[in-house]
Amino acid sequence: MTTINTKVAIIGAGCSGLKAANELLTLLDQRDVYVVEAQDRIGGRLFTDRTSSVHGLPYDLGAAWFHDCLDNAVLDYKLALGKFEVPRDGYFDEKDIVVYDRDGVVDLNGLNLNQILLDAEKFSEKYYYALLDHKDVPLKEIATRYIEKFDKLLTPQQKHYLVRMIRYLELWHGISWDVMSAKYGILQHEGRNLYNKEGFGRLPEELAKGVENILLSQPVKKIYRGGDKVRVVCQTGLTIEADYIIVTVPQSVLALDKDEVGGIEWIPSLPKNVTESLESIHFGALGKIVLEFDQVWWDYSQDRYTILPDYDAAPVPIEFTPENPPIPFQFPAYAINYSKVHDSPNKPSLVLLTQAPLTNYFEKYPEKAWEYYKPMLQKLSVTGNRPIPDPLQVLTTSWTQNPYFRGSYSAVHAGDDADGCIIQLSNEFPNVGLGLDSHVRFAGEHTILEGAGCVHGAWLSGMREAKFILKAFALKTSSKL
Amino acid sequence: MTTINTKVAIIGAGCSGLKAANELLTLLDQRDVYVVEAQDRIGGRLFTDRTSSVHGLPYDLGAAWFHDCLDNAVLDYKLALGKFEVPRDGYFDEKDIVVYDRDGVVDLNGLNLNQILLDAEKFSEKYYYALLDHKDVPLKEIATRYIEKFDKLLTPQQKHYLVRMIRYLELWHGISWDVMSAKYGILQHEGRNLYNKEGFGRLPEELAKGVENILLSQPVKKIYRGGDKVRVVCQTGLTIEADYIIVTVPQSVLALDKDEVGGIEWIPSLPKNVTESLESIHFGALGKIVLEFDQVWWDYSQDRYTILPDYDAAPVPIEFTPENPPIPFQFPAYAINYSKVHDSPNKPSLVLLTQAPLTNYFEKYPEKAWEYYKPMLQKLSVTGNRPIPDPLQVLTTSWTQNPYFRGSYSAVHAGDDADGCIIQLSNEFPNVGLGLDSHVRFAGEHTILEGAGCVHGAWLSGMREAKFILKAFALKTSSKL
Repeated sequence: MTTINTKVAIIGAGCSGLKAANELLTLLDQRDVYVVEAQDRIGGRLFTDRTSSVHGLPYDLGAAWFHDCLDNAVLDYKLALGKFEVPRDGYFDEKDIVVYDRDGVVDLNGLNLNQILLDAEKFSEKYYYALLDHKDVPLKEIATRYIEKFDKLLTPQQKHYLVRMIRYLELWHGISWDVMSAKYGILQHEGRNLYNKEGFGRLPEELAKGVENILLSQPVKKIYRGGDKVRVVCQTGLTIEADYIIVTVPQSVLALDKDEVGGIEWIPSLPKNVTESLESIHFGALGKIVLEFDQVWWDYSQDRYTILPDYDAAPVPIEFTPENPPIPFQFPAYAINYSKVHDSPNKPSLVLLTQAPLTNYFEKYPEKAWEYYKPMLQKLSVTGNRPIPDPLQVLTTSWTQNPYFRGSYSAVHAGDDADGCIIQLSNEFPNVGLGLDSHVRFAGEHTILEGAGCVHGAWLSGMREAKFILKAFALKTSSKL
Repeated sequence: MTTINTKVAIIGAGCSGLKAANELLTLLDQRDVYVVEAQDRIGGRLFTDRTSSVHGLPYDLGAAWFHDCLDNAVLDYKLALGKFEVPRDGYFDEKDIVVYDRDGVVDLNGLNLNQILLDAEKFSEKYYYALLDHKDVPLKEIATRYIEKFDKLLTPQQKHYLVRMIRYLELWHGISWDVMSAKYGILQHEGRNLYNKEGFGRLPEELAKGVENILLSQPVKKIYRGGDKVRVVCQTGLTIEADYIIVTVPQSVLALDKDEVGGIEWIPSLPKNVTESLESIHFGALGKIVLEFDQVWWDYSQDRYTILPDYDAAPVPIEFTPENPPIPFQFPAYAINYSKVHDSPNKPSLVLLTQAPLTNYFEKYPEKAWEYYKPMLQKLSVTGNRPIPDPLQVLTTSWTQNPYFRGSYSAVHAGDDADGCIIQLSNEFPNVGLGLDSHVRFAGEHTILEGAGCVHGAWLSGMREAKFILKAFALKTSSKL
């Protein structure tokens, strides 16, 4: 059995792990930094599929947008590098969304629906701000409360549409409104959202260039955190002993029991405050379904389309099965005019975002996706009721089916402790987690407040840990002098 | 010379003064509450002109909207009263604003201009939030900084329009962007805005119903605040001695030297912290120009229209004169389709909002208004370049010309101390102003954070002072037992 002795072992070659490695290597030698990765590729939830498209289009199956562009460290990095140019490599898909329902286009402006939606969101924000002890409720419930409270200010139509429109948040968080936290579900944007046409897969490639020791297909099985050194044992038997480790596996994997596939055994066990924080938060399942056609049959002038669910849509079950499938218009759908994003009218392509539990179902049974979405997408047809063509190809993500991901990113259900996980894992707060000076560090989108759930959050968390370790080494060295 | 002895004297029969009187009279006798008012009418900056219109339309020359409808005490009161019904008495003028410039309609959606505008505003907010010691600059300057910083994310057209679009804030604050505080100029809405079709003049009428002692045309000249009782001397010689007084004169009047018309002499003088706070804030001049026509020549389907200033508009002078008049397209203009608000296509009427220094000029020279606005309004014409008809009538507000108003409401210039006045006058903070227990109280839109500058702010401040005084009387009584 091979044993590697090194200074820092990083578990996970995604954005946070590779950024940490990169940052560490500005001062450490290559032999001092090892990255182990469970998959047979780097990148984690950054993955650009450049080969499957019949049109030759690249598809980001994981992260695809630079969010919070007023303060996005990854975008700043890309721009500073000089190889990324917004007009060519990015696309601000931010035109007014056209909204459809079973009856056709919804007259948002005529009914002031965008204002009602903003108002309901502001109500939710004020509701929890005014009384910090207000019990968190699902988004579904807060919409009802808003309507009850402001009954006299709303028209019947506004009430009818609002409860369906507010479900657009399902396509941000990857969970359904009946479980989503109203308290934490409302988005707080820190700037615009820029679609990354270049493909986010380029980022781990760039970061990995200067990192020699990346070991693929090495899922971690055990971590001994008792002694002087931290010891990481992989399923293959490979062992790494390091002064510090940075654990960047997804929150979903961290929460696994040691006997589940992907589960890590900690010796000694992680303290109760940490394990409890992992039980007090959920992991979403934002998926994507790519539909490639031989012709554009939708309104090409638009960026994005929302198709509302029915007002009396059936309740959301725990999971769907082929015997108990979802019914069209049971969930809101969100489609991106991908051809327009890539300024390619001759490469007809729509990208749908999906939410749990639809994501789990379609990622398990990809052949079921088209029959569900077809009647909904029919509404987008510029030729009215003439049946839209079947796609040349349907590509579906598989995050929920991969035991080393099990979904997309952190998601807050009603009643969850939204920040608990960050507080326990960021090693930035005294008397919690593993302690400020722990040699076991955590990074990833689930360990940081700024950019939580985003690529730039992962990036910043990797930088945070690298800086901590470099500082610790520097102090150690200087105290020896 | 008459001297009235009473428990509470209220200076000003506007919203805050009348609300205070009303609240006091729930427990005090009529003889215990006197209201003195400088004008020959009640209402202050709530005034509905129901007689001037050739079409028989009511025009609110002062406040006209219920703002922050998620938490507006005045709207709640009106709704609870049962006589105000939103579909009949209110109008949510919140459809997408159509924006014009010299060249016609601006393609907001095609150029993503609403997103850019929101982004620039968010940038300003983050700028001052991130670094509390960032020096306040005028709105004009922050727009430039945003564009410089995010140069790579903006198209030339977006930059070109943004600096003109952001000036829409001039029509909220009643001041121009070259003086407006960037730090405090960005709006923080707490809900939707409801136009009050009933006319806000109804509110003081309702409040005054139960108040017997309202003395009109009684400008206050002196206030003796030294002894056991507070003594108020009016210009007519009328003297009122009271245990408590509530001063609700506008901030602009409070800031006057005693020798100016409307100025109040304080004996002893107000402390320096108070007078300095009044010097560290400005008073805006939001005005209105009503244009009544014999036919609708604009796009009747819209609520509101913005006409952008030129990109290279001439700098804003301190004041305009007939020799040095404003040039069309020098300022943004904002027009309300008043006919639509009142669902009266046969009563063609547009209401323009105006900002300082335009307001001051047009209120002094009302006959100059139409020649300035005509070429700008021409852009709204549905018949293209065919000259639009002259109005049957032009009605102009006169707030800046009235020595007891001198403008509209508090406005924050770059570098002002936005909250100083509120802190000094609200009697809610220890060791400032006249002290927590002072028998001289202040109320009005300029003395309160919640609803600052709004009708419901004035209302809440009146209630605050009435409650304080009632509590003080109750304590005094109970301690005597």
